[in-house]
Amino acid sequence: MKPRWITLTTDFGLDDWFVGTMKGVIGAICPGAHIVDLTHGVPPGDVQAGAFALASAYRYFPRGTVHLAVVDPGVGSDRPALAVKAREHLFVGPDNGLLSIAIEQLGKAEIRQITNRRWMLEKVSQTFHGRDIFAPVAAHLSAGKRFASVGPVARAQVALNLPRPREGAEEISGAVVYVDRYGNAITNIRNEGFQGPGRAADVFLRSRRISRVHDCYQSVPVGKPVCVPGSAGFLEIAVNQGNAARQLRLKVGSAVAVRW
Amino acid sequence: MKPRWITLTTDFGLDDWFVGTMKGVIGAICPGAHIVDLTHGVPPGDVQAGAFALASAYRYFPRGTVHLAVVDPGVGSDRPALAVKAREHLFVGPDNGLLSIAIEQLGKAEIRQITNRRWMLEKVSQTFHGRDIFAPVAAHLSAGKRFASVGPVARAQVALNLPRPREGAEEISGAVVYVDRYGNAITNIRNEGFQGPGRAADVFLRSRRISRVHDCYQSVPVGKPVCVPGSAGFLEIAVNQGNAARQLRLKVGSAVAVRW
Amino acid sequence: MKPRWITLTTDFGLDDWFVGTMKGVIGAICPGAHIVDLTHGVPPGDVQAGAFALASAYRYFPRGTVHLAVVDPGVGSDRPALAVKAREHLFVGPDNGLLSIAIEQLGKAEIRQITNRRWMLEKVSQTFHGRDIFAPVAAHLSAGKRFASVGPVARAQVALNLPRPREGAEEISGAVVYVDRYGNAITNIRNEGFQGPGRAADVFLRSRRISRVHDCYQSVPVGKPVCVPGSAGFLEIAVNQGNAARQLRLKVGSAVAVRW
Repeated sequence: MKPRWITLTTDFGLDDWFVGTMKGVIGAICPGAHIVDLTHGVPPGDVQAGAFALASAYRYFPRGTVHLAVVDPGVGSDRPALAVKAREHLFVGPDNGLLSIAIEQLGKAEIRQITNRRWMLEKVSQTFHGRDIFAPVAAHLSAGKRFASVGPVARAQVALNLPRPREGAEEISGAVVYVDRYGNAITNIRNEGFQGPGRAADVFLRSRRISRVHDCYQSVPVGKPVCVPGSAGFLEIAVNQGNAARQLRLKVGSAVAVRW
Repeated sequence: MKPRWITLTTDFGLDDWFVGTMKGVIGAICPGAHIVDLTHGVPPGDVQAGAFALASAYRYFPRGTVHLAVVDPGVGSDRPALAVKAREHLFVGPDNGLLSIAIEQLGKAEIRQITNRRWMLEKVSQTFHGRDIFAPVAAHLSAGKRFASVGPVARAQVALNLPRPREGAEEISGAVVYVDRYGNAITNIRNEGFQGPGRAADVFLRSRRISRVHDCYQSVPVGKPVCVPGSAGFLEIAVNQGNAARQLRLKVGSAVAVRW
Repeated sequence: MKPRWITLTTDFGLDDWFVGTMKGVIGAICPGAHIVDLTHGVPPGDVQAGAFALASAYRYFPRGTVHLAVVDPGVGSDRPALAVKAREHLFVGPDNGLLSIAIEQLGKAEIRQITNRRWMLEKVSQTFHGRDIFAPVAAHLSAGKRFASVGPVARAQVALNLPRPREGAEEISGAVVYVDRYGNAITNIRNEGFQGPGRAADVFLRSRRISRVHDCYQSVPVGKPVCVPGSAGFLEIAVNQGNAARQLRLKVGSAVAVRW
């Protein structure tokens, strides 16, 4: 049997033992699992950032990978726990929007509520469902248990209310949805919207022109702003070898427009 | 043969090559090992924080896991190096208290001093025993070598002088022993001490009442303090979707009391 | 077949999904790969720090390990991508000096330019070659594909212009080349240069004497500066249980001398 992959996406950080403990729980159930950290640096409670990270990465993993995501400020309340199967990808996480961007991208998905008590740890705390519910469920799925056994078919109750870009004849207007380690600002404007023949476009922050759309960071001198089709599939605003978020005062929500 | 698991707990951080190098040493001896980071974010030299992290997590790992722990400000001095076997868990680390909380929890343990020169790297530095002694020893144990070969039976010389809670008729008084990424303060007061029928209790910081003991963070409005039976097995003081350490000025050592 | 090891060294940090995505790409091609993080904490764009980390760690890994390194401020420009084979170690990364310290240490190396389009992802972005080129190439090499298929034999075009120590009759003068998490300053003066019988030496920062060369951090009282043969093979300046970089105002480039 092929090695099975499990990814982890959380806001737990790496300074405590929480991530390691989830891996132990997985290993005790499915010792052959390949466990990979997607990221544990999601800002505490920032469901949207977690959802964006997961949606940007899951498709690069082997088919059959189980993606375990826990950004869960509502842990212990009655928010449901979900398991999702879509195009041979599996997802496990709280029903708070964290899985919603990936689910929307995947289209047809089988969504189930996690209720199978036998797949959870014997003692379930009210403060660490990552360890007591989500990790063991992911491990059982990774070990090849039947998906339908996780619980009854359900509907996701929460979807993120993400800003959507508006497309006009001569402009697409959108917003920054994520700022990465380098200070690059990722927008919600799809690369396909502004690429293609004869589509030389300029990018604006409000009324201020940043640059035209270039191919790569190196297309402008060091220290200058540059807009590129980003690797996550969306327009990205960067500074060549600099920090665009700092230099241009960009943050999540900043208005961005592409104009022809 | 089942895949073997090795956990790593250190204060090395992740910015240098130290953790990666230990993994390389392990891989060169035991290439099938599953190596899992417990945490490398222990504050430099903070043996107690490392001991608490290890003791909170080890029991969730598969039987036979080797737990390698290195928070070792005395590296290069004559402090002994220990290997410990207890209830099918194995531990490797310096004799400075780092393993002591886990050992105490496990009860009966076989403790040996690491002296087997053939299990160490050929050249042993005086500044990086994690790479030169602990990692290869853990790998040899993980590869199934006989535990008794590590060295002679010994006694741990150092135990942490942890504050112990005092239990009275109407009060348990204790202290904060760990503050996690979210600002949740974990105390040394066991959940069993204040849970159970008819035991509705209030938690105090000195004379200031924080809250009664609730089930989960969500039991109080957002931004309010809440005390819960914590996932590590001890009373935890939190703020619903906030940072209790900051808001209530809690730190390791802060006095906490549960009263009926 | 033995499990194959792949190490990752980048400046991507761990807060975004970039590292996880590379692992997914590797897993989709070579699901049995053992992927190990060397470090992702290289300061953004700091090729020299990345080169030093890689060169300090690679030799501890099993033979046949593929070392994937991406500190790549020139991504998207026409800088070549390299694959290197030397003494059963394999390296993959940009031709910007990142691999140069390791290559120089290894001596005879077979260097090839990465041009095999079939080993890259179908769609290659201009901003994330780690995911689209380096990770899949590393995975194909790890899966046992023929090294020569990666592309034509080439020469590395960029080597780091590292400061070299000068050796006199009574003095070796060098410089700090790396400061680690503990504030220990690693120099470019080899341990072999100042060790050995009758070589009791003193270490100076400019004209200020720091200490003589000791065996370990514990050789001086807590809080005092100490110079030791470092675990990376070079003279290291530390403070026993303290932070030498802060206390002695050391940084990369600071002049250091060993005198007899």
